[in-house]
Amino acid sequence: MGILSVTAALFAADMQAQQNLFGGQDILSAVVNADRTVTFRCMAPDAQKVQVAGDFAATVEDNPVGGIVGTGLLSMTKDEKGVWIYTSGPLEPELYSYLFVVDGVATLDINNPHVYRDFATISNVFLVGGGQADLYQVNDIPHGSLTHRWYDSPALGTDRRINIYTPPGYERSGERYPVLYLLHGAGGDEDEWVTFGKATRILDNLINQGKAKPMILVMPNGHIHLEAAPGESSRGFYKPEHLRLENAAGAFEANFKEIIDFTDRDFRTIPDKAHRAIAGLSMGGGHAMTISGYFENTFDYVGLFSAAAGGRSGRPATGVYAGFDTTLKKQFDNGVKLYWIGIGTEDFLYNANKQLRAQLDAIGAKYTYVETGGGHVWKNWRIYLSDFAPLLFR
Amino acid sequence: MGILSVTAALFAADMQAQQNLFGGQDILSAVVNADRTVTFRCMAPDAQKVQVAGDFAATVEDNPVGGIVGTGLLSMTKDEKGVWIYTSGPLEPELYSYLFVVDGVATLDINNPHVYRDFATISNVFLVGGGQADLYQVNDIPHGSLTHRWYDSPALGTDRRINIYTPPGYERSGERYPVLYLLHGAGGDEDEWVTFGKATRILDNLINQGKAKPMILVMPNGHIHLEAAPGESSRGFYKPEHLRLENAAGAFEANFKEIIDFTDRDFRTIPDKAHRAIAGLSMGGGHAMTISGYFENTFDYVGLFSAAAGGRSGRPATGVYAGFDTTLKKQFDNGVKLYWIGIGTEDFLYNANKQLRAQLDAIGAKYTYVETGGGHVWKNWRIYLSDFAPLLFR
Repeated sequence: MGILSVTAALFAADMQAQQNLFGGQDILSAVVNADRTVTFRCMAPDAQKVQVAGDFAATVEDNPVGGIVGTGLLSMTKDEKGVWIYTSGPLEPELYSYLFVVDGVATLDINNPHVYRDFATISNVFLVGGGQADLYQVNDIPHGSLTHRWYDSPALGTDRRINIYTPPGYERSGERYPVLYLLHGAGGDEDEWVTFGKATRILDNLINQGKAKPMILVMPNGHIHLEAAPGESSRGFYKPEHLRLENAAGAFEANFKEIIDFTDRDFRTIPDKAHRAIAGLSMGGGHAMTISGYFENTFDYVGLFSAAAGGRSGRPATGVYAGFDTTLKKQFDNGVKLYWIGIGTEDFLYNANKQLRAQLDAIGAKYTYVETGGGHVWKNWRIYLSDFAPLLFR
Repeated sequence: MGILSVTAALFAADMQAQQNLFGGQDILSAVVNADRTVTFRCMAPDAQKVQVAGDFAATVEDNPVGGIVGTGLLSMTKDEKGVWIYTSGPLEPELYSYLFVVDGVATLDINNPHVYRDFATISNVFLVGGGQADLYQVNDIPHGSLTHRWYDSPALGTDRRINIYTPPGYERSGERYPVLYLLHGAGGDEDEWVTFGKATRILDNLINQGKAKPMILVMPNGHIHLEAAPGESSRGFYKPEHLRLENAAGAFEANFKEIIDFTDRDFRTIPDKAHRAIAGLSMGGGHAMTISGYFENTFDYVGLFSAAAGGRSGRPATGVYAGFDTTLKKQFDNGVKLYWIGIGTEDFLYNANKQLRAQLDAIGAKYTYVETGGGHVWKNWRIYLSDFAPLLFR
């Protein structure tokens, strides 16, 4: 049987994909079973060793990589047809990522057509439903719309791609809506709150359950040297590098009003402080902190998810970073309805957030603090958004 | 060096992707060189044989798969670091797909974060710019918007996902626009004209060059048993099966007015025949043929790209398929400004389209016929759209 074998019937029918499709194997993987165990299959008759690596693997059996939370390498077993199989124990409801490692070569599972990009890296994904994870699914309820737009940024000298979610019924209601600006991390782009973050589905579900107010989500790209996510810009298909100093220069934060103005002009917003929230994860949490302080009377709701709260230490105390202590005080004097901080106990930014809390305590600022287990992972950020959104615009 | 090694610096900085990202290799692949050769790299120190399979490979060196156009298997060569390398000859400007085959196992290139799904299968992609392919790139010009919407379909008993492109300036112009309904093939869904088809970029570029009129693109899902593309529906992440009989029952075609009504209600269209076009590839070409005949005075422009034009033979001559010869005659008697047929000489539907032409000739229908090289492939469908769109709404 050829690895790239195709179903002959496909070519007999007049309905098919393009002629040069890369075949396909008659194998299903990853299969979520009724008991929430998950079965992985990899066709590799001639391989000596096949493993599955995933953030579902709590037990690290054989992992050459130190320090990466949750990416155990689990040995698969070959059956008589040359298919390597591994079935996990029952998994908690969650969105998971995984890879195969075939004779030491990291590969994707070609039988799972669902691949998510986390900036420069890719992995297969699967979802175990139930509980919290039901918020991440498409359910049989009204759906909002997601629009990929480009806004003009004179300050940054280019048009820039931006993703906008409008809630169910927006197109015909004629009503105005509050806005949550939702920012990604340094290893992300405007698409990741949609893919890994499941933000549009979380909002669809929370709104349908009456737990969150209908709102607009605005997801810009926080890398000022990029006009769009990799593959969506004039740079074409390329492998992006993590960490660019430009991110720390404050230009994204200082020019955020361009994004607010764009949103208020092209969407039916309620353009006031009481109906404006800003939140972000990691670098985006730092952005949310800085932006909400710099535009000191603009946001009534602020969410810091595993925020790069201590990022100011290495930066020049100029521009948006100048006199941050004073700015923070002024922001709270002006009034903030909700200043929400979420962090995992295993997050490498735990201490930075501890320091931020001390700073807030010192000025008598009132904030909400949520400490969870886990580290700097999408699992936490999905939960934080799910818990934060219902608190907005009350 | 660990396969899943990560840059330690990432963990020192407070700006990064999630903690459990799957590392990343310090390897670039596929790299399009200045002379339009392309270099592929695969880290596999312990592998015995690594090959690259792609639709760029005109020369089939060693391909166990008969009958698949263009998917040659080309041997890569291992360097001293265990990285397998292959550099192609200069390639024509085009969007290409490829995979690696490591010791007989089909895998994706984990160093290329750009992966496209063709219904149930996945492959890496790269683009060689220049010429025709410049239409497929994001250029520094105004961009239209792409919205993922859901429309209510009482006839099919569900909400259904649909992709809508609005041209640059739509949001603020206040103007009304013509509409091109653009349909996918049996091995596709509502997303594929955006990914492989590059329809939104082709339109952005043609409109900017003054070659096409600004228009709205409407891209529905033509599988009536699906509410949305795989991964975007309540079925969650699953591997879809090709070929479903429901496709042939005519319900998609018969209820197409729901999609027209939705579009005319929620978008600023010019809701008349002179400003309405319909086109599709393969099964979608069959749909365009049937729909434009069944709604006999609705579309002034029809595009059949590698159309499943002979699909009627195996179907009951009832419903939308009843009396098709008469319907076709009536459609042309009512007047059609453009009936455009494009087919490749190697396409397995070549004869079906030849029969359709004979049928059109028999009733004295005037149509445009474009015969290209190549087969049933996205390369042709991108070209057909690029050639068809400029002819619309003149």
